[in-house]
Formats: sequence, C-alpha cells, structure tokens
Amino acid sequence: MTASAAETLFETHKAQLDGALSAIRSRGYWSAFPESPSKRVYGETAAADGLAAFEAMKGAPFELSGHPGAGMRVGGEVSPYGPALGVSYPAATVDAVLAAATAALPAWRDAGVKARTGVCLEILKRINAQSFTFAHTVMHTTGQSFVMAFQAGGPHAQDRGLEAIAYAYDAMAATPEHVRWEKPQGKNPPLVIDKYFKTVPRGVAAVIGVSTFPTWNGFPGLFASLVTGNPVVVKPHPAAILPLALTVRIARGVLAEAGFDPNLVTLLVDDADDPIAKDLCTRPEVRIVDFTGGGAFGNWLEENCPQAQVYTEKSGVNAVVIDDFADLKGMARNLSYTFSLYSGQMCTTPQNVFIPKSGIKTADGVMSFDAVAAALAASVDKFLSDPDRAFAVLGAIQSKATLDRVEKAAALGRTVRRSAALTHPDFPDAVVRTPAMIALDAEADRETYGAECFGPVTFLIATEDTGDSLARLRETVAEGGAITAALYADDAAVIERARAVCEEVGVALSVNLTGGLFVNQSAAFSDFHATGANPAANAALTDAAFVANRFRVIETRIPVDEEPAETAA
Amino acid sequence: MTASAAETLFETHKAQLDGALSAIRSRGYWSAFPESPSKRVYGETAAADGLAAFEAMKGAPFELSGHPGAGMRVGGEVSPYGPALGVSYPAATVDAVLAAATAALPAWRDAGVKARTGVCLEILKRINAQSFTFAHTVMHTTGQSFVMAFQAGGPHAQDRGLEAIAYAYDAMAATPEHVRWEKPQGKNPPLVIDKYFKTVPRGVAAVIGVSTFPTWNGFPGLFASLVTGNPVVVKPHPAAILPLALTVRIARGVLAEAGFDPNLVTLLVDDADDPIAKDLCTRPEVRIVDFTGGGAFGNWLEENCPQAQVYTEKSGVNAVVIDDFADLKGMARNLSYTFSLYSGQMCTTPQNVFIPKSGIKTADGVMSFDAVAAALAASVDKFLSDPDRAFAVLGAIQSKATLDRVEKAAALGRTVRRSAALTHPDFPDAVVRTPAMIALDAEADRETYGAECFGPVTFLIATEDTGDSLARLRETVAEGGAITAALYADDAAVIERARAVCEEVGVALSVNLTGGLFVNQSAAFSDFHATGANPAANAALTDAAFVANRFRVIETRIPVDEEPAETAA
Repeated sequence: MTASAAETLFETHKAQLDGALSAIRSRGYWSAFPESPSKRVYGETAAADGLAAFEAMKGAPFELSGHPGAGMRVGGEVSPYGPALGVSYPAATVDAVLAAATAALPAWRDAGVKARTGVCLEILKRINAQSFTFAHTVMHTTGQSFVMAFQAGGPHAQDRGLEAIAYAYDAMAATPEHVRWEKPQGKNPPLVIDKYFKTVPRGVAAVIGVSTFPTWNGFPGLFASLVTGNPVVVKPHPAAILPLALTVRIARGVLAEAGFDPNLVTLLVDDADDPIAKDLCTRPEVRIVDFTGGGAFGNWLEENCPQAQVYTEKSGVNAVVIDDFADLKGMARNLSYTFSLYSGQMCTTPQNVFIPKSGIKTADGVMSFDAVAAALAASVDKFLSDPDRAFAVLGAIQSKATLDRVEKAAALGRTVRRSAALTHPDFPDAVVRTPAMIALDAEADRETYGAECFGPVTFLIATEDTGDSLARLRETVAEGGAITAALYADDAAVIERARAVCEEVGVALSVNLTGGLFVNQSAAFSDFHATGANPAANAALTDAAFVANRFRVIETRIPVDEEPAETAA
Repeated sequence: MTASAAETLFETHKAQLDGALSAIRSRGYWSAFPESPSKRVYGETAAADGLAAFEAMKGAPFELSGHPGAGMRVGGEVSPYGPALGVSYPAATVDAVLAAATAALPAWRDAGVKARTGVCLEILKRINAQSFTFAHTVMHTTGQSFVMAFQAGGPHAQDRGLEAIAYAYDAMAATPEHVRWEKPQGKNPPLVIDKYFKTVPRGVAAVIGVSTFPTWNGFPGLFASLVTGNPVVVKPHPAAILPLALTVRIARGVLAEAGFDPNLVTLLVDDADDPIAKDLCTRPEVRIVDFTGGGAFGNWLEENCPQAQVYTEKSGVNAVVIDDFADLKGMARNLSYTFSLYSGQMCTTPQNVFIPKSGIKTADGVMSFDAVAAALAASVDKFLSDPDRAFAVLGAIQSKATLDRVEKAAALGRTVRRSAALTHPDFPDAVVRTPAMIALDAEADRETYGAECFGPVTFLIATEDTGDSLARLRETVAEGGAITAALYADDAAVIERARAVCEEVGVALSVNLTGGLFVNQSAAFSDFHATGANPAANAALTDAAFVANRFRVIETRIPVDEEPAETAA
C-alpha cells in the first residue's frame, strides 16, 4: 500500500471523521464506537473470541515483529484478580527506540495529513474490532470489572482517541496546503505569489501510561501525536502493559500494511525497580510527552523537560459540596454508585464531601451532619448489598499502595462506614474492598483531606456552613488540584456561587446529579476531562490546546509573476 | 457603557472580524488597515495632526490616568535620528501592576467572549486612527524611516493584532457556550443534561517589548492575551517605550469607556541599568509571557518561568542559498533592497549567503564566486546611489551595539563592500550606515557566520557546492535558528531539495524572489512569521497554537431530567 493508497483509508473513514468533527463543535451526544458489549453489535463470537485471544496471550511471549531491541524479554504483570499474567515483552533500550523512531519520521511526515489521518482511523477501527480482547487485558491489569473494562477500556477509550484525531485533523486542515496570494499594486500588475503550507511534526513523542486506565488515558496523546506526524514511543505502567502492547501491535500492523515503517509506534517496557521514563522524557529527540499518573512525577516532568511539550494528568482532591437539598435519597443513591465505581480508583472520584456541621434542610426536614453521613453510608451499604452489582461495580484493588491506604483509613478520623473485604465468586484471590467513609473536621483535619488519598476512601468533612464548604473547595483545589467537583443545592443563588468558585479555581462542576449521570463519568465529544486550569492537570482531554502544539507549519513562497520590480520601495 | 453595551462594539466591528476569520482560513491576500499613508485614506489633516501630537508628547510627562504607582517618573529614550525624546512615564512597581491587574481580572473574564472581542477591536480601530502619531513614535525609537515606521509600526502591526484577535476568537467560539446533551438509554427515557462551557483566562499576561518593532511584535501577544481574558502588563524595551505607552493609553481609554477597569492594561517601564523583566516574568501571578528580543534572555525565559506559557521570538541566522540562476540581475536587485531595508535590523533579514566557491551558471555564463559577490555589492551600491531612496530605506541604526558590530565587521573576513556613514539631510545626528558585505569561507569561518551578527552586515560564504550550501543552512539553522531562508535556483530538483531541508529544519523558504516581494516581508493573514520549529522562536505569529493555551474551558453540567436512576450500572 502506498501513501496515496493510505489516503484511501481516509476516504473509507471519512464519514466517521466528519461525525467526530461535527460533534467536537456541537459537543452534543455522539459516539462512534458502541459501548454495549452486545452480540448484535460486535457479533455472535466476539465475546468468546476475545476471551480466547486473551487466554492465548497469557503465559507467553508477546510478539512484536520487527521491533527494535528484540532478544531479552521483560514484564511481570499480576492481575488484581489474582493470577500472574506471565506475559513477556521485547526489552528495548531508549537508544534503540529513539533511533528507530527518528528514522521512521520523514516518510510519515511527508505522507501528508490525509494519509496519516486515514491510517490512524484504521488503527482505531481494528482496535474496536478487538474490544473484547482489550476488555480482558484491561480487567486483568487495572482491576476494573469486566463491563467497565469493556466500556472504559474499549469503546470509550476509542471515542477519546477519535476525538483527539478529530481535533488534530481540524487544526491541521485549518491552514490550506496551497494558496495563490495576489496583492494589488495600484496601477501596476498585482504581486502574485504561490504559497505552500506543510504541517511538520515536533519530533518523537512519548506516552507514559497509567495503571488504572491505560487505554482511555493513553489513546488521546498517542493518536494526537501520531496523526500530527510524530513517531510515538509507548512506555506503559509496569502493572498495565498488555493493553498498550496490544495497541502498539495493532498500530504497527496497520502502519506496515499501509507501507510505513512500523517503528513509528514502539513499546518501551520497564519495571518498577528500574524505571526508564526520566531517561526517555529528557532525551533531546523527545519533543512531546503525554503523562497520566501521580502528581510528584507529573510535576517533575513539567519542570525537567524544557525540550518537550509536556501534557500531564495528575492527581487531585475532587470535592462535593452539599447544601440544603430536598432529594436526599436521590443524592445518596447517586453518590453511592459514584463512591463504589471501580473502588474509587478513578481520577474523577470525589474524595472530599463538605457538609455543614449544622446539617442541611431536606424534604424530610433538617438532617444533622451525622444523619447526612449515615444516609450516605447506608446508601452505599444498600447499593452493595446485591453481590452481583457489587462485584460488577467495585472491581478489584489495583495496587498494594491503594490497599494500604484503605486499610489505614480508619486511623484518619471517625469511621462512618467501615471498608470490608469481599470474596469474589469467580476470582478468590481478587483484592476487593468496599469504600471506607471517614468523618473529618474542616479545620482540624485540613492536612488529611488536603492531600490525595487515592482509592475507596471518602472523607465527610464538617464545615461551618456552605460558604465555608466553598472556601474549602477553592483552597484545596487551588493547592492540590481537582478533575471534578459536584454540588447538591436547591438554592439557585448557591448554585451560581459554586459555579463562580469553580470557574475561578478552574474545575468542572456537576450540579444536583440524582439520576443516571455520575460525576466521575466524562463523555468523549462532549465533556472536557480535566481543565488544565488547576494543579491536577496542565491540559484537557481533548481540546484545541491539546493538539495545536504537536505540529508546526512550514511555508514555502514562490512568485508566479517574476516581473522585475521597478519600484522596490 | 455596560458589558452588554460592550457587546455592541462586537456588532460594530463584526464585518471586520468576519473578514479576518475568512482570511486566516484562506490565507490569501487580505488587510483590514490600509498601508498607504494617503490623505484619501487617513484624511487631509491626519499627517499634520500626527506630527503635532508627536511633537506635543516630546519633552513632557506621558499621562496615564489612574495608572498604579504614579508619582515617580522614569524613561530616557533617545531618537536614533538624534534628539532625546524627553518623555517621562509613571514609575510603577511589579507589585503594584500585578495587584491592579489581578483585581481587574474577574469582571473582564465574566464579560464574555463577545464583549472582550468588541473592546479589543475598538482599541485597534482607535490605534489605526492615530497611525501617523504611531509612525513618528516608532520612527524616533526604532530608527525606521518614516514610511516604514508608518506601515510596519502602524497598519501592518494593526493587521497582526487583528489576526491574533481572529485566531483567539475562533478558538474560543469553537466551543459552544451551552448545549443540551441527550444520550439515548434504550427503552428508558434519554439522559438529558444541560452543559455550559465558559472560557476563563490563565492569569496575568506579560508582554516584553523589543526595540526594533515594538508594535508589530508586541500587538499579537497583547491582543491574544487580552481578548482571551488575561490582564496585560506591557514592559517595553527601555529604548522604545513611547509606541507601547501610546498603545496602553488608548487601550485603557477604551476599557474605561466600556465600563471595565483600565488596569486590565498597564505599563511597566524600566531602564537598561535596572531591568525588571525577570522579576515580572517569574511572579506566580504571571501565567503568560510574550517576548521578542535576543536569544540569551529568550532562552532564559523559556527555562525559568515554569508557571507561565512563554512565547518567544528571538535571534537567528537567516540564510540565502544561491545555485545556478539565470536572472542574476533580478536576484541582485531584489537582494539589494532586502539587505538595505532598515539597515538589516529586521529579524527577517538574511545574514548568511551561501554561494558555491566554483561559481554559478547565469544567463551571462558562469560567474565566479567573486563575480557573484561583486554583482551583489554593485547592486547595493546602485540601489543606494539615489539618496532619497537610500534614506527612505536604510533608516537609522537603532543601538550602539549594532553600530559597533557594523564598524567591526571588516575584521571578520574579506571586505566585498565597505559600510559607509551617510549624513541624513533632515537629521544631521542620525546614525546612518550602509551594509557591510564580508566574504567568508564555509569551513574556516564556521564560528563567525554561525552566530548572529545583527545589523547591516551580510556574509557571502564560499561553499563546496549547493549540496554543501544546503548542509550549512541546515546546520546553522538547527543550532542558531532562523526566521527566513531564501533560495535562488533554476533547477526544480534543487528547489525540491531546499524545500525538504527547510521543512526538516523548520524554517520558511522563499524561492527565486526577483520582483516586488522580499524575503524579509511577512504579511499578516497569509505568512506565518517564524515557525516555532527551530531555535529562533518557540511560536509563530499567528496560528492556533499561539492562542490555544491562553485560556481554558470550564464546564458546568446540570441534569434537565432528574428522574431517579433505576439502573445505575
């Protein structure tokens, strides 16, 4: 397949791209990849095929044909559901992947916008076709439940990738490839100049993966960089390699078929004892870094890679403010799901719930702080009382560090709801914990709730009043960052005040969620994930700012009319 | 005037904005502000009024009503044409302007995109009406000739400001302010969510002015930051304060009339002995920096302001490559203007002319390196032999440092054309010098031509052949940066090779200019000024990347349908 044949991929997927381009402008509901793991959508055998493919990968070397540095093998993933995966990956060096990526760059750059876009859309299509396989790889690296792993790790992640491609295509296509510029010269003939504009990449891009949402958080940067012409080195989290390794293999296959160097997308695996990301991200060839993970390393990357554009999504202290609110039951039901979903291991899960110490007015009269806290805890109890639902929502605890935090949470304050260990019916070794809910005092426990306590730990914080709650939200978000904020309030004036605080401190706000939308959900093509306006992240997924600096435009001017200049001045 | 009245300014200027929005998409010829200083355009008395206004400013305190820190006064500009200007400015402290700017931010942010855009367009309109006044202030701070000061310092700078406003408006308007999101839920009623998107600024913006093109290089950052909601602190170069002080005064007047705090635009004047830019740009409140000037300080800013988005346009070693080219006369005539214009004090002026040591083929047969060099020198001689034209093109030398460089240029190599001092008929104290042209060897003199020698000094560099010339271009631009490159070649294959080299090294290329377009010209709405892809600049004027990170979008979600969620998972 040649570059112009690669452009036929662009035509093949043009309707999908047009849909995405329209969606990022309207930001109404739209999705390219069905979130339902239904046979009607994905085919009769898709589920069984995906499971079989996953089973075949376990305990075996993961092959990447033609990948640099093959020979030695690395990798030691263990499923949060119990068994070690036993998958080994080619061990490559930073030198080797950067040399291969640099060599692959020129032909990819010169292929042009349409060819690159077509190839990236085809990669997404093939990833989508393997959504069930991805679901198992995501489930058994992150600890997500199967349905969540399918949706968030599959179609939702694919939508986020497509969204990034759409923004990048829109940004590149905004400048024409050629224009004839004609400047009037009074009575003289006009100046006529042919101008050509070419988008060129910045260099090599690094994607530093996260252990909880390797594809959902990894795809935006990966596709934004690749479609704008930058070869991509994927460095997964050592605990969640397989979903990104599978991504890399699919991408390399499409690239090779389309006549490009598969080393445009490479895999760099390290382990926790010998991390390689600092070495990679500070190399002069690396001009773009996309990172999702903890705040300490994210801040380090922001400050120590001046040669690169660094995009980070880090940690934060997400907040809920509860004011007088009639539908306490709806609120509690909605929050019980929010606190339970993936055991609080989402960067969008609220940590701090600010409640006036004097209580709130509800449809059933004034409820004290303790009564509100008890209602929230009881709602979690009730929600998790159905074991099928509990296991389908909680998933498993991804890391030892998160397990440690939830086990030590009781020492942080007054326990309102104790975290409990559950035994998974299908995976007896899975580490499953229900949320801990701890009551704190807004003033005395400032340090406790001001820091991130990642995992199934909710702080219920007694404040002076809602004004104090909003002040605490402002202060904690300004210092510690946040990706989400939520408010429950019947008073329109309180809603406006909360909105003003959130706009000032730069965090997205969800108001009075009692139905089927949850604060920790973020829909591609409509919701911006993170804002880039507070310490939790320096960029949003995905907007024009996320893509605009991944390429540059180089102009060539050639006069059409080479008449001598008689009046030079 | 209220915020909604400010929005009427948006309607007033909407046709102009629409023209600009169309132009940045097509990048064909378009201009909003006429470049001709004609009475038919600017009015019968505009020229006399502008001169009178300038004369009235000289030797007097420059008033900025309500500006923070008034009391002490500073400023010591001296015209490159001779006389001290004698203008003094309010002395403000960094603390005072940042406190005032921070206090002014919320109302400006909350006014919304249309109100801010309307106000910025009105500021530009009023600046345009004072184009003659600006011309004199630019002439007598930068040393540009009057006509150049009028065009580059007036309408061309205004066009660049409008271009930045258009890109920023386009970026902000790309996200709707409100959408109703409806997600189908199978047989159940859809999820219906109202989503509101608000653009918020990053914080306070700093504009660090340059001595040679204070308005042309200053307006893009100033207007891009202001229209996206960021208060702007303008810190002019101590040698070129007046054009930006006048800009600040006009902006403050429009802001106050529209009901906003005039401290949204403030002036911070320092002097060369006590520079204040480092203190300003490293302050936590400052979240955007736009800098034009030397490479050393630009690099310092890029590396030492992690809290800010830093946009730089620095120095470089612009190159011309000459291959076999029939129309030697046309080339020499075109380059004679290019080398003479503003005495080489443009960031777009070529410094290094690479010519094969064995000479080139022309319509008149093979010409040796020395013959080509002599032809270029003779063309400069001829071009400057008309004194009126010479003074109208050369202008005056802006700084002592530039004068030193041209006076010492002869020591750098073999003189092909000696720089001469000219006595300006109207300004006997003006420092006027014609270009020095120095022959160098590509290998032996690598260090000499690899560094920037800003001013009227042209290096004619003998290379092995055009392949070597292109390699030298690549090497010098990769290390030292460049804003322009030019090629003269009849062979289409050579043109393609040069284009590939320039695309790789990230510099714009002009090919075979022999007529009325000159390599050092850059037209708003069509040419990108700098690329951001080599060390000369980390951004281009103006593209989407220049504006996208100056604001963030904060989302608020509110369910329309508050039906209870029955099937939470």
